[in-house]
Amino acid sequence: MSANIFVPLSHQNNTKHMLYDFSYQNPTRIHFGKNAINKLANELKAYGENILLVYGKASIKKIGLYDQVINILQAEGKHVVELAGINANPRYTQLLEGARLVREHNINLILAVGGGSVIDCAKGIACGAYAEGDVWQRYYVNQERVNNPVVPVASILTMAGTGSEMNGGSVITNEETKEKIGRVYPLEIASPKFSILNPEYTYSVPKYQMISGIFDIFSHLMEQYFSGDDDCTSDYLLEGLMLSLISASRKAIVNQEDYEARSNIMWCATMGLNKILGLSKTQDWEVHMIEHQLGAYTDCAHGIGLAIISPAYYRYIYRDGLHRFVRYAKVVWGVEDHGQGDEAIALEGINRLEAFIAELGIPATLREVGATEEMLPLIAHSTIPGGGYKQLNAEDILAILKACY
Amino acid sequence: MSANIFVPLSHQNNTKHMLYDFSYQNPTRIHFGKNAINKLANELKAYGENILLVYGKASIKKIGLYDQVINILQAEGKHVVELAGINANPRYTQLLEGARLVREHNINLILAVGGGSVIDCAKGIACGAYAEGDVWQRYYVNQERVNNPVVPVASILTMAGTGSEMNGGSVITNEETKEKIGRVYPLEIASPKFSILNPEYTYSVPKYQMISGIFDIFSHLMEQYFSGDDDCTSDYLLEGLMLSLISASRKAIVNQEDYEARSNIMWCATMGLNKILGLSKTQDWEVHMIEHQLGAYTDCAHGIGLAIISPAYYRYIYRDGLHRFVRYAKVVWGVEDHGQGDEAIALEGINRLEAFIAELGIPATLREVGATEEMLPLIAHSTIPGGGYKQLNAEDILAILKACY
Repeated sequence: MSANIFVPLSHQNNTKHMLYDFSYQNPTRIHFGKNAINKLANELKAYGENILLVYGKASIKKIGLYDQVINILQAEGKHVVELAGINANPRYTQLLEGARLVREHNINLILAVGGGSVIDCAKGIACGAYAEGDVWQRYYVNQERVNNPVVPVASILTMAGTGSEMNGGSVITNEETKEKIGRVYPLEIASPKFSILNPEYTYSVPKYQMISGIFDIFSHLMEQYFSGDDDCTSDYLLEGLMLSLISASRKAIVNQEDYEARSNIMWCATMGLNKILGLSKTQDWEVHMIEHQLGAYTDCAHGIGLAIISPAYYRYIYRDGLHRFVRYAKVVWGVEDHGQGDEAIALEGINRLEAFIAELGIPATLREVGATEEMLPLIAHSTIPGGGYKQLNAEDILAILKACY
Repeated sequence: MSANIFVPLSHQNNTKHMLYDFSYQNPTRIHFGKNAINKLANELKAYGENILLVYGKASIKKIGLYDQVINILQAEGKHVVELAGINANPRYTQLLEGARLVREHNINLILAVGGGSVIDCAKGIACGAYAEGDVWQRYYVNQERVNNPVVPVASILTMAGTGSEMNGGSVITNEETKEKIGRVYPLEIASPKFSILNPEYTYSVPKYQMISGIFDIFSHLMEQYFSGDDDCTSDYLLEGLMLSLISASRKAIVNQEDYEARSNIMWCATMGLNKILGLSKTQDWEVHMIEHQLGAYTDCAHGIGLAIISPAYYRYIYRDGLHRFVRYAKVVWGVEDHGQGDEAIALEGINRLEAFIAELGIPATLREVGATEEMLPLIAHSTIPGGGYKQLNAEDILAILKACY
């Protein structure tokens, strides 16, 4: 099981609610661009000397970033403790190991260098290090309010996708209990204090992972967009971001080292889930819910799973939000109105989405990413039911899975 | 004379520069909606007991907001000092008076209740209270770095337009020297710590002021948009915000108490100049420069002046940024391409802008807001020359002024 990590429950499945009240503040300072790393030394001066460096595998060493960061840390007189080998799905045991290191070395700053998984793990360590009791049960299963001191987190991002560099999200997998649970910690306590975003770092990401990241971003935008009946400013901004992402992605798949394209993709990822573009509107996130369970059974890349599920999902629900799907078709995909009727326009929008997914080089069926027919009911029944324009139950989800199997 | 308050000089007039590096952090916590005032008491707990309440004229008393705020301040045990009567163009003498009150009463928080002018003045007081020497000369004329303690500012917004509620901008008029100078203080020191935005507060704003605010917002978006040759994510977001503002404005001019419309206008104002939508791109701001001098000679409402100048300005420069004006025409105004050619498409976009201005009920000529023919060369020669797609000199500016006279 996994909780809906993205939206407070009070804002879910409330599609008619217009412009609800909100509070928003995002503490993350972004340093963006080719020379962003030059800001690291000055940022470090604000923190004590003990740094926990959290990273994944060899990739940050291959691109020279590891050496560069270590040199800056040493020049600033920092004592560096390392936690390496964070997985694509960061494990609870790694969170506990990091928490132990924080306490043992009196860590003043956790510096995550890598993609969203590394940053997610760093946030879990930051919130969990000084927590009493069972962190997994309290902060992930029960989603309890954090009431202990939290260690500051910062990040140097090497992949674009999750948006973890400017939000409080932390998805952790407990291998023992076979649970993958997301937690959105409050921005004010767990969003990185600073994040360094150099698009050039993303050049070395394998193309399949780049594409998975792109669709993860695109799905974040659609999940925020496909709900609500109002004329909300956030919807116009989400449309703008979708158009930018489509344009940049088409360039990046041709030339992975197109700086402009990779810059825009990186910034779309950050803006796409720093929560500022979804303010005041209801949201969906059911595609993410289904994909989490698909991932639990097949271990397929998150963005790839989202891309396979999305066209089937939207074809299943579009009639319940027809006005919005017509708008999406026209604005995002340029479908022209020749009097063919709203249903045809809406469906053409979804067809264009499907064509874009194919253009990115993503497979179209679940069987291509290792799902079996036997898995489908298991995925459907373990997915948390929800939805934006249509409230789904397990039978609905099974029908969607069959449609893209 | 007035400085370009909006863009660091290094980013001005550099239209070919692609995706420059940036740093961004915005500390303001926004509380938005009908019940946002309920967040005030809790916010106040973070500050000491001495509050400087800065506001304008009678309007906050008329809508009951003054009493509500005083009651909350008293319930929180605060000692309230008042600085009332802040003008539409806040004066340097008012800044000095506020600075004196801050020192005399050991003020812990400056709470601005009103529109952009009141908040602008509060920021000037906050930065100037403990400055050594001549604040006007140092922080406005010389634009020196602030190196003294700054008092925290917070705001309760009653008009939508300037975006001052989530940025560091502070435009102050020195009546003695006849100068109106804008200063952008760093977000981290002068952006309000929190801002309370209730769209209902804006219902009581006279229609003419509402429309002036709407076009001020629209101009902020165009000034950020009309520069640069790249495919920048920020441009797509600005387009989204323009479309939202057009849609909401058309509803608000019919019904000033349309909550959805006024909410979207208020949020467009904040998002339009909290700087997050213009990141990584060059900007223009020459229309603002011209309007500042128009305002110095005629005292016309800021947004109204911007609306009169804009069509003439854009017709004067569109050939130098033709690709962008074609895009603007198609995306923002829905101009269809029937093979009429780029020039015709671009001009049709500007025509539609002009029609929208008329639809808002804004006069089309400078003479209607009190300008005389004799003023035009004086305005032209006192305007700071600049531009986005085209670098203008005084003769160019005079030609633009004549075209809308």
